[in-house]
Amino acid sequence: QTRFKVAVLAGDGIGPEVMAEAHKVLNAVEARFGLTFERTEALVGGAAIDAVGQPLPPQTLSICQQSDAILFGSVGGPKWTGLAPDQQPERGSLLPLRKTFDLFCNLRPGQIYPAFAELSPLHPRVSSQGMDVLCVRELTGGIYFGEKGRGEDSAFDTQTYSTAEISRIARVAFEAAQKRSHKVTSIDKANVLQTSILWREVVTEVAKDFPDVALEHMYIDNAAMQLIRSPQQFDVLLCDNLFGDILSDELAAIAGSMGLLPSASLNGSGFGLYEPAGGSAPDIAGQGIANPIAQILSAALMLRYSFGLEDAAKAIEQAVQQCLQQGIVTRDIQPDSSYGTADVGSAIANAI
Amino acid sequence: QTRFKVAVLAGDGIGPEVMAEAHKVLNAVEARFGLTFERTEALVGGAAIDAVGQPLPPQTLSICQQSDAILFGSVGGPKWTGLAPDQQPERGSLLPLRKTFDLFCNLRPGQIYPAFAELSPLHPRVSSQGMDVLCVRELTGGIYFGEKGRGEDSAFDTQTYSTAEISRIARVAFEAAQKRSHKVTSIDKANVLQTSILWREVVTEVAKDFPDVALEHMYIDNAAMQLIRSPQQFDVLLCDNLFGDILSDELAAIAGSMGLLPSASLNGSGFGLYEPAGGSAPDIAGQGIANPIAQILSAALMLRYSFGLEDAAKAIEQAVQQCLQQGIVTRDIQPDSSYGTADVGSAIANAI
Ligand SMILES: CC(C)[C@H](C(=O)O)[C@@H](O)C(=O)O
Ligand SMILES: CC(C)[C@H](C(=O)O)[C@@H](O)C(=O)O
Repeated sequence: QTRFKVAVLAGDGIGPEVMAEAHKVLNAVEARFGLTFERTEALVGGAAIDAVGQPLPPQTLSICQQSDAILFGSVGGPKWTGLAPDQQPERGSLLPLRKTFDLFCNLRPGQIYPAFAELSPLHPRVSSQGMDVLCVRELTGGIYFGEKGRGEDSAFDTQTYSTAEISRIARVAFEAAQKRSHKVTSIDKANVLQTSILWREVVTEVAKDFPDVALEHMYIDNAAMQLIRSPQQFDVLLCDNLFGDILSDELAAIAGSMGLLPSASLNGSGFGLYEPAGGSAPDIAGQGIANPIAQILSAALMLRYSFGLEDAAKAIEQAVQQCLQQGIVTRDIQPDSSYGTADVGSAIANAI
Repeated sequence: QTRFKVAVLAGDGIGPEVMAEAHKVLNAVEARFGLTFERTEALVGGAAIDAVGQPLPPQTLSICQQSDAILFGSVGGPKWTGLAPDQQPERGSLLPLRKTFDLFCNLRPGQIYPAFAELSPLHPRVSSQGMDVLCVRELTGGIYFGEKGRGEDSAFDTQTYSTAEISRIARVAFEAAQKRSHKVTSIDKANVLQTSILWREVVTEVAKDFPDVALEHMYIDNAAMQLIRSPQQFDVLLCDNLFGDILSDELAAIAGSMGLLPSASLNGSGFGLYEPAGGSAPDIAGQGIANPIAQILSAALMLRYSFGLEDAAKAIEQAVQQCLQQGIVTRDIQPDSSYGTADVGSAIANAI
């Protein structure tokens, strides 16, 4: 297969700017590898609210349904924070997309690049030891989607997990660990939560199918602490939806280079949503200084996981590495840099 | 009142060693201020499991009931990790104590002391800006104590919060902020959880009674990130039970000096449980090198919050500061130190 359909949801803030650079890179990949990425743009988030009154319009959903993958920019901004929670750009677009497409598996790598260890807010005695963690987060279950409600003077949320939900995300984590450093740290609160006790049991059971991967269980509070003290001890973090939300952001903060971190949200049949880990950064939107690398690396993940184009994905990743080495980076990476968003995107596209 | 009854639950690991130093300090306070702390020791945690088969024996509970406060050491260790969750030393003692005495309010300060900023795992460019945060955590509600259960292939936990539960802990946070830097950051996940939406509403309402305190709301994932990036932005963190569990440990990791951090768990009538933030540290137990300061500062909090002895509490805190300044510290604070647990405890007692 050489033809793939991509739903492009650029969104708000820096989304459209960094997406423009991802387009350049995808064009370069098309040319070099003889591929066609048929791209259809659609409204999402605040831009969609402004245009048609809702963060995930039906026409956007139908474009996604007719595509092989979703390349997502970022959504949200101060303009829409006053809206009701389920009408807000982030929640109102991401949660229904995850549920509609059963995107149960969220992958978020967090790295300290030795050459850029100074970007990390950790002490050099910690950051110099490096970090290369993959956070595997369950994305369609748990307290996010359990029964919830409101009484007159009270409210409740329910966290539920089934054996099937836990085992399918656990398998992804163990398979990922097999291609990495062969260690899974499963996060739970089994000293308090019944869902965590089940989580621990199921993960322990799944681990038997992966004798070459070491499994460790860790309480969420301890993990929040260990990630700061000695992040180099981790390889793959396996988390439920809520704990993964928290730890993946903590991990990104530790890496210190939000502008470099992509993410992938996958279902069981190769469909996925790919987005930068950072937000819409309204404070720097429109200035041409946003870092496009996270968006470009998200496109690389799309080629790998949804299209099976490993070579093309690697080509993008190598081109990114080359630019990083050459110092062609935006000022979030090097404060005195004079390169802008478009310079970095073009350099990466040219390197392909 | 000059006579107070203290239930002393030293527990496991380094618990008994550091408690011995707290006793020295309390003796010194008795002498200097003409007070009597009538102390009754009781079994708890693994020590209680070994002696009488349960982590919180009835006789311990009744000693606590007859006391004005509980001074708690630390519990747990590798010996007991195989037990069922509700039989384990930590959970099996702390959760029932919190519930029995309605200890709804957990206070955990986290500081980067300028003189010891190098202890923090944060980069000097961050840690040199200092940090002085008080985490106020709701301790008897939420997902810890909601309905929970297990089906054949599934499990569930329920998080519930009432207006009354939220407002009483919010008041504590605002009152604390009035004595500090007049800022409360309330943590929730109001873009996903109904309990968080209620939390935000109630906290916003309570804030109206404290016009001199600035209120800010922050999502838990963002807070996990901000705490690492710029901890100096925070004054008082107001958290529910689960988010407080995670953030207070993250805060402790950032401070980098677990051995210096006390905690207080209070109810509405002055009764409280006071314990070091760190664990039982079985790896260094029995060697006489554990840092007794967190235990000693926990005793100071007991004098302040349960006994209303502000002067005596301050005297302990000043004595601790004096020892820190003189470098009379254990090797977790200064790796080349030759002072042990007893040296530090005696120095603090002498300074009173
Ligand atoms: C916007 C929000 C609902 C979402 C989440 O909590 O999952 C976001 O924080 C994320 O991690 O993608
Ligand atoms: C032992 C455990 C149940 C407890 C908690 O989660 O509250 C502990 O982590 C704490 O923070 O005191």
